[in-house]
Amino acid sequence: MDKDKLYISALSVSEGVNQPPSVNPNLRKVKRAKLSIKDYVKGILEGDRVILSRAITLVESNLPEHTIQAQHIIEKCLPHTGKSIRIGITGVPGVGKSSFIEAIGNYLTSHGHNISVLAIDPSSERSKGSILGDKTRMETLAINPGAFIRPSPSAGSLGGVARKTRESILLCEAAGFDVIFVETVGVGQSELAVHSMVDFFLLLMLAGAGDELQGIKRGIMEMADVIAITKADGTNIDNTTRASAEFRSALHLFPLGESKWVPQVLTCSARNNTGIQEIWNKINEYRDHTNSNGYFFENRKQQALYWMIETINEQLKANFYNNEQIKTKITELENKVLHDKLSPFVAAQKIIEFYYKPGKQ
Amino acid sequence: MDKDKLYISALSVSEGVNQPPSVNPNLRKVKRAKLSIKDYVKGILEGDRVILSRAITLVESNLPEHTIQAQHIIEKCLPHTGKSIRIGITGVPGVGKSSFIEAIGNYLTSHGHNISVLAIDPSSERSKGSILGDKTRMETLAINPGAFIRPSPSAGSLGGVARKTRESILLCEAAGFDVIFVETVGVGQSELAVHSMVDFFLLLMLAGAGDELQGIKRGIMEMADVIAITKADGTNIDNTTRASAEFRSALHLFPLGESKWVPQVLTCSARNNTGIQEIWNKINEYRDHTNSNGYFFENRKQQALYWMIETINEQLKANFYNNEQIKTKITELENKVLHDKLSPFVAAQKIIEFYYKPGKQ
Repeated sequence: MDKDKLYISALSVSEGVNQPPSVNPNLRKVKRAKLSIKDYVKGILEGDRVILSRAITLVESNLPEHTIQAQHIIEKCLPHTGKSIRIGITGVPGVGKSSFIEAIGNYLTSHGHNISVLAIDPSSERSKGSILGDKTRMETLAINPGAFIRPSPSAGSLGGVARKTRESILLCEAAGFDVIFVETVGVGQSELAVHSMVDFFLLLMLAGAGDELQGIKRGIMEMADVIAITKADGTNIDNTTRASAEFRSALHLFPLGESKWVPQVLTCSARNNTGIQEIWNKINEYRDHTNSNGYFFENRKQQALYWMIETINEQLKANFYNNEQIKTKITELENKVLHDKLSPFVAAQKIIEFYYKPGKQ
Repeated sequence: MDKDKLYISALSVSEGVNQPPSVNPNLRKVKRAKLSIKDYVKGILEGDRVILSRAITLVESNLPEHTIQAQHIIEKCLPHTGKSIRIGITGVPGVGKSSFIEAIGNYLTSHGHNISVLAIDPSSERSKGSILGDKTRMETLAINPGAFIRPSPSAGSLGGVARKTRESILLCEAAGFDVIFVETVGVGQSELAVHSMVDFFLLLMLAGAGDELQGIKRGIMEMADVIAITKADGTNIDNTTRASAEFRSALHLFPLGESKWVPQVLTCSARNNTGIQEIWNKINEYRDHTNSNGYFFENRKQQALYWMIETINEQLKANFYNNEQIKTKITELENKVLHDKLSPFVAAQKIIEFYYKPGKQ
């Protein structure tokens, strides 16, 4: 049993409220006139990057006044959202996520697309050079006028970070971006969050990293719509071809998901710019496939309801587990459970009774 | 996104409280003297099957007075639990679960073990011939004095059914059973519940059922510690050998779990009684492996805490989602979310505010 998983659904729901709102460093020089909700919405719908950035900053802020403003902006933008394809990308550090996104991003903008790159990395701290924190990792894409790159919201609970990224997707869509990438690292929970906000899930893998699967957590592979083996160049080409055959035969032993899409394995090289177009073609094939069987929009509807229910559940748990008396009670009973003095159910029952009728205990 | 999964974590937490307590048909003839808690505990610790059965009936009952009695019995039995190996078994209907359990059960009792067979099937209704509902499916094991077979608790929420099965495991252990099987069908959520209450997870598979993987849901394969290809007999032997090679090479592409155990693929035939001992040997190897790296007991501790936290979360949600005003509110806002009139987060926020301050709305 995964200890992390245990607590992520229970104890890690609190979110720091004292963190300062995140600031896009590029905007520091800009004189920040106070904008009204109307100004924000107008700017976003006109595709104004600076205003989009500032709106996302509001979304990412933990100040209650900012949250309220952000929600008003999102509400006004909602009718203009949904017209993109949302693509989740994961893979362990070193697999070449940044190079891949740069390659496919430049390819797409040269074909008339406007792309956004967002990220989820709950553990990130800007100062430590987090995922996408350093735009120099995508030198050419960062200065590409058809691309908008935004680092992961700063550290917080996964639920909080994921909410912010999901709302940023909506704002980017309202601003006219038609391809949205959401990048994350292949370490577990954050993939599930990304998977529940994207249409398509791309897993990047290295060839020849042996049986240990390069640190990708269990369960991630089964979420992939396409697995792309990276670094298919130079002397590594044979390795990637062999790896892709292996993954292909492994994948076909696995059951299809609800989309009824057969996961594909491809190879690519960001260095040589090969395989990139093929991956984009597969993404389009996937979109056609799921549009024609109705999965595409059904999935989005279910995702929206999922986020509603998840948010409710997180709030219920936050309210409960952040209660100081409950914390004490849990620690006390947890010990009894661990020493076989109390069954888990009786312990739970006692804690729940205490919560709803604290006076009677 | 799996629609079932969405609601199982939210709306399906209510449990019928008006169902009659389940009755083991074998006991109908027995004159049922009223037993005290002390009588129950004494009987269980002495290995009295009839009293064990009656205690499980209390565990399965939805009557509050029975629940209280059951919890007292469990509490007294707790110090005598934990000395078994708990084995989860899954596979789609037709894979031969009953035949397999019968074969391994008879093998184990002939080697001095006492075995229990429990089940989880949240959809079961006794009258419809549910999983294990019909003991004639295990003719020889049903009359084997070293075996104790108990059908799945009757229909209810998965959380409720799972709790009952998990508590029954404890009672069986206190009664001296040293190998506990928990059977379920390979359709998704119930596997996760079983996985979180067993030490070892066995997946039974058919050879040559093609790429569609026989209806096994995604994610189940990655939980397996051993995959056993059944019906390795007669003209099917080549098929099972080929299938086991395929699964073996597929599995080694997947990351190891926390137990650091490398999942194994074996073949067996219940008809010819072959491969059964080998599977039991693997289970012992697994136990040795996880005992020596500390995973075995660490996992059990985490499972106990998991059940405590899960029970709390289920109760919190039941309290919330069974509230009539909340139900109405959710339906109303759900519609707005589905029609892009409201973001999922704002909708969630409104519902939560309504719950905590109903007067202000």
